[in-house]
Amino acid sequence: MRDEAAIGVDIGGTKIHFAVVDNNGQIRCQDIVPTRGERGAKAVMDTVASGIARMLEGHGRLAEPPPIAGIGIGSAGQIHYRSGEVAHALDGIPGWIGTPIKRLVEERFPYPVYLDNDVNVIGIAEKQFGKGRTLEHFICLALGTGVGGAIVQSGRLLRGVYGGAGELGHISVDFNGPRCPCGNFGCLELYASGTGIARMARERSSSLEGTVRDIDSRGVMAAWHQGEQWAEEIMDIAIRALSAGISGMIHTFNPQAVFIGGGVASSGDRLMNRVSEHVRKTTASAMWKEVELLPASMGAGSGVIGAAAQGWFYSMPRE
Amino acid sequence: MRDEAAIGVDIGGTKIHFAVVDNNGQIRCQDIVPTRGERGAKAVMDTVASGIARMLEGHGRLAEPPPIAGIGIGSAGQIHYRSGEVAHALDGIPGWIGTPIKRLVEERFPYPVYLDNDVNVIGIAEKQFGKGRTLEHFICLALGTGVGGAIVQSGRLLRGVYGGAGELGHISVDFNGPRCPCGNFGCLELYASGTGIARMARERSSSLEGTVRDIDSRGVMAAWHQGEQWAEEIMDIAIRALSAGISGMIHTFNPQAVFIGGGVASSGDRLMNRVSEHVRKTTASAMWKEVELLPASMGAGSGVIGAAAQGWFYSMPRE
Repeated sequence: MRDEAAIGVDIGGTKIHFAVVDNNGQIRCQDIVPTRGERGAKAVMDTVASGIARMLEGHGRLAEPPPIAGIGIGSAGQIHYRSGEVAHALDGIPGWIGTPIKRLVEERFPYPVYLDNDVNVIGIAEKQFGKGRTLEHFICLALGTGVGGAIVQSGRLLRGVYGGAGELGHISVDFNGPRCPCGNFGCLELYASGTGIARMARERSSSLEGTVRDIDSRGVMAAWHQGEQWAEEIMDIAIRALSAGISGMIHTFNPQAVFIGGGVASSGDRLMNRVSEHVRKTTASAMWKEVELLPASMGAGSGVIGAAAQGWFYSMPRE
Repeated sequence: MRDEAAIGVDIGGTKIHFAVVDNNGQIRCQDIVPTRGERGAKAVMDTVASGIARMLEGHGRLAEPPPIAGIGIGSAGQIHYRSGEVAHALDGIPGWIGTPIKRLVEERFPYPVYLDNDVNVIGIAEKQFGKGRTLEHFICLALGTGVGGAIVQSGRLLRGVYGGAGELGHISVDFNGPRCPCGNFGCLELYASGTGIARMARERSSSLEGTVRDIDSRGVMAAWHQGEQWAEEIMDIAIRALSAGISGMIHTFNPQAVFIGGGVASSGDRLMNRVSEHVRKTTASAMWKEVELLPASMGAGSGVIGAAAQGWFYSMPRE
């Protein structure tokens, strides 16, 4: 394959990550700016466009710059991947729903533009450059502010009707549980996301020391690593909920691997080990034999690298 | 398409259904015999072979018999669909795990042989001859003794590594729930299968009239239709668990339809209406707009018709 580069853009709720990525998956130059979503969709799209322009300038300053194959964008929210619009999003960016991201970028730059949601592009990064390179069937779980999922089946992203598939944070792991903003009860995201872990800590705080009242998920996990009993109780719930969800996903998809990433998962081996132990005990043996639970292999840049890699991903030969 | 016929075989825990099916999905002749699995795998395979031989004789007696395209088999258990062996099964048929069903039938008959699990073939029946004919993305749920699933995505069956995908009865809908024989906690099958409904009735029976003690799921549903409070309480749990599971599947797959069939679902509109009402309230609106909940459209013969249709399904042109 000849050397190429692509511009990657990873639009998150708090920051936008821009990069020039080569077709070995290496970031050649990059920039991170705050999203400031409260300014509304139009202002955010202006920030996206000026960031892309800066990356094109940065690319021009590289020694022997490889030709640019395209611009790939990953965005928070549900993406209507054929039309290139935002199908659904929470209210961090007013007017984001319906924003024709793909068309707006195509109008400003003379390159092919690809758009997907911010977790599907992590799946693409695993498939193109990570440990998923040799796999045909795997799942990526991103445990961050929320819980997101990407499903690769027979080497392709599983999409459903418009691209909404893979919302694995909104499978119910407790039909008697609390209501989730999505409408469902006891969604995985309520237990295994940073927000969910912090919520559980706050709900228990009335019966605990006052210091717990304002704690976030990092604080819970720090206390857990220090052996505090209240944190162990909360993390036990998070781990059992996550493990039940993952077992269900394995029974649903019969995958070769489940990659677990995001802020909650980056807290070290202890979480992964506990989850693996649970999932082993709660998964049918014929399926367990075929699957590995692995930490996400692409690190903090996986979003922007996978966003950039979309054009290469879609041009791969398939069965 | 020229007229063809295929032999279908649907191997269940209690009975084996044989049929000659034409490529309009019509059963031209059929036979049902008891499985008597306790005799072991070899005896069951002899029963399968003699049933196929009877169907070939029956086919020969048809007026203007269409040429036979192949033999298609659906079997209970997890099927290693490439090798044509049983990957995993519960203990109804001693020795069933590892039985090379496909090879054993190929050795006896001069036709192509296809093998899949008993719920995937229901998915094939919906896709070839049912309301799934015009759909690319749908899920079939079979609520019987257990809960089984088949997932059609981009017109293809979703399989995973060896064909184990679609075990939708073993997604957890309550991580604090009772342990399932599969290893997971609070599996959907524990609440929404006939066995699960009967179990819940038995567990409540200590606090109820003695007549409930030996009740099966038909009895629970009959009492529910008659307005008995104890049955309403049990069916409320079944319906909430099933609805939470279906919402999760919709968030996972973004499908166009979920078909619900099997003995539990055949009890009338009341169950479907209650489930629809729940799922509507518990599913993200962007996904709910795209999906229909429908009763299985192919009826009691769907297993044997779908089994027979495998050769036609795989020869369909696809994107």
